[in-house]
Amino acid sequence: MPAMNHNFAKEDFISLIYTLQDDICKSLENEDGMATFEEDAWSRPEGGGGKTRVISSGAVFEKGGVNTSVVYGEVTDTMRTQLSIAGDKWFAAGISSVIHPYNPFVPTVHFNYRMFELYNNAGEVTDRWFGGGTDLTPYYINEADIKHFHSTLQQACESVVPGSYTSWKKQCDDYFVNYHRQQERRGVGGIFYDHLRSNEKHDTMRLLGLAKSCGEAFTSAYIPIVAAHKNDTFSAEQKYWQEIRRGRYTEFNLVHDRGTLFGLKTNGRTESILMSLPPTVRFVYNYQPKPNSAEDELLQVCLHPKDWVL
Amino acid sequence: MPAMNHNFAKEDFISLIYTLQDDICKSLENEDGMATFEEDAWSRPEGGGGKTRVISSGAVFEKGGVNTSVVYGEVTDTMRTQLSIAGDKWFAAGISSVIHPYNPFVPTVHFNYRMFELYNNAGEVTDRWFGGGTDLTPYYINEADIKHFHSTLQQACESVVPGSYTSWKKQCDDYFVNYHRQQERRGVGGIFYDHLRSNEKHDTMRLLGLAKSCGEAFTSAYIPIVAAHKNDTFSAEQKYWQEIRRGRYTEFNLVHDRGTLFGLKTNGRTESILMSLPPTVRFVYNYQPKPNSAEDELLQVCLHPKDWVL
Repeated sequence: MPAMNHNFAKEDFISLIYTLQDDICKSLENEDGMATFEEDAWSRPEGGGGKTRVISSGAVFEKGGVNTSVVYGEVTDTMRTQLSIAGDKWFAAGISSVIHPYNPFVPTVHFNYRMFELYNNAGEVTDRWFGGGTDLTPYYINEADIKHFHSTLQQACESVVPGSYTSWKKQCDDYFVNYHRQQERRGVGGIFYDHLRSNEKHDTMRLLGLAKSCGEAFTSAYIPIVAAHKNDTFSAEQKYWQEIRRGRYTEFNLVHDRGTLFGLKTNGRTESILMSLPPTVRFVYNYQPKPNSAEDELLQVCLHPKDWVL
Repeated sequence: MPAMNHNFAKEDFISLIYTLQDDICKSLENEDGMATFEEDAWSRPEGGGGKTRVISSGAVFEKGGVNTSVVYGEVTDTMRTQLSIAGDKWFAAGISSVIHPYNPFVPTVHFNYRMFELYNNAGEVTDRWFGGGTDLTPYYINEADIKHFHSTLQQACESVVPGSYTSWKKQCDDYFVNYHRQQERRGVGGIFYDHLRSNEKHDTMRLLGLAKSCGEAFTSAYIPIVAAHKNDTFSAEQKYWQEIRRGRYTEFNLVHDRGTLFGLKTNGRTESILMSLPPTVRFVYNYQPKPNSAEDELLQVCLHPKDWVL
C-alpha cells in the first residue's frame, strides 16, 4: 500500500477538522444569536493536545461543545489489551461535538469524525483507518425534520461512497443502544461508520473526502431544524420530559459509549470528554410516559428504529 | 467446613434484610413526615426477585430507595468470566439503599449488605461470603456530623470484629473513587468490607452478626444528621452546587461501581439498580469552586480523605 508512506492523509485530515471546527462554531453562534464559544487549548505530556470549544447558557444552546484533538504516543499495554492494537506508535485526530439546546422541541445532536494511524519502530505507517458519524436525539418526533436530517446525511455519504447509507444508518442504530433498557436507542440515529481502511474499494483520498462531505453536511442537516423550532413555546412538563430523556443520554455515554470509556480509562482530558453530558438531567424511578402521548411516540421510535428515507 | 452444610445462614440473612428494610423505611418516613415508601415487588425468570421501595418528592427526601433482593440461578458464562466464579449454582441476597435529600446541607447516604453462596451440582455449599458497607456523601463539610457518622459505624463493626474499622474505612475510601477525576472520592466514606468468609477468625454466625450490627447502626448514624439540618435555609447557589456534586455521584455509579455495572450487564432489574441515581443533576463544563470557599473545602476533602475518628 504505497499511499500509506505519504503523510498527506494526516495533514489533510488535521486541516479539515480545524476548518470544520471554525465553520461549525460560527454557524452555531450565528443561530444562537447571543452566546459565543470559548476555547480551552490543552496539551498532554505524552504528545499532542486539543482545542475544546464550549458554548453555554445561550439563547438557544444550553450547553454544547465542538472539540478537536490531535494526539499521538507510544502504544501502551492498555491499548494492546483493550483495543487489540499491534504497533509501536499511534496517531489519532478527530473532531467531536454534542449540542444540547434548551428548547425540548430542538433535538440534541452529536457528530464525530476521526482518523487513526499506527507505525512501526522505523516510523512507517503500518495501518490507518477512518471512522465517523452524525446522529440526532429529539425529545419529540417531527417526521419532516428527521427525514431532512437523514436525507442530508444520506446525500453526503452517498455522494462519496454510493450505496453506503443503508448499512451506515443501521450501524448507527446498532451502536447508540442502551442495552440495559430493552435495547432502547438513544435517539433517531443518523449514520455511523468505523474502521474504514484503504483497499480496492476506497483509497485514502476517498476516505478523507467522506469525512469532509459528512462533516460539511452537519450544518445543513441540523441548523434548519434549530431555526424552525428554537422559538416554539413549551411547557414545564415538556422540559421535564427532555430532562428524563437526557438521563438516558447520560446513561448511554457513561455506561456504553466506547470512546467515552476509553478516554476516561486512559487518562484522557476528562472535562473535554464529559462536555457531552447534558446540562440538567432528571433520574426518576420507573418513569413511564402515558400510552399514545407525544412522549410515548418518541419512546416507541427509540425502541423500534424506523427507516426515515426510502 | 461443616457449618456450610446448614442453611441457617441464608435463612437468617434473608430474615435480617427484611427486618432492616421495614425498620429503616419506617424511620426515614418518620423523619420525612410527609412522603411514604411505595413498594414494587418483582421476580426474575431465572429465579428469585426483590422488593424495591422508593420514596420521592418528600418534605425531606427528594428521592430514595431501600431495596432487598433474594436471587439465585445457574452460574452463567458471564459470571465465570467477569466474576471468576467457579460453581454450578449461586445464591445472592442483599439490602441496598441510597437516599438523596432535597436540602444540600443534608448529606446523601448509601448502604449495602449482601451475602453470596455457591453450590456444586449435588447442592452442597462450596463457598459463601459476605460484603457490605455504609458511606456518606455530604455537599458541605460539617465535622461534627461526619465524626458522629464514622464513630457510629466504627462502634457497630468493632463491637463484632474488634480492630476492623481502620482497614474497612480505608477500603471504603479506596472503593468510591472517580479515577477519571484525579482520584476524587465520591464523599467522606464510612466502612466497606467484601469477600469475608468463614475461617479461623470469623465463623458464619459472626459474619451474620456483623451485617446485623452495621445494618442496625444505619439509623443512629444518619437520622440525627438529617434531623439537625433538614430545616437549614439554603440558597439557589448551594442547591446548584449540590446538583454539580450529584453529577459526580452519577459518574461514579455509572462508570466505576462494580455492582451497578454487573447488574446492568447481566439483565438485572434496571429500575431497581438505577434507583441510586440522583433526582436532578447538573453537568457543567470545567466547574471549579472558588478557592477556600465552603464548596472547595468539600472538594479538597474528597481529593484527600481524612481520618475522622482517632
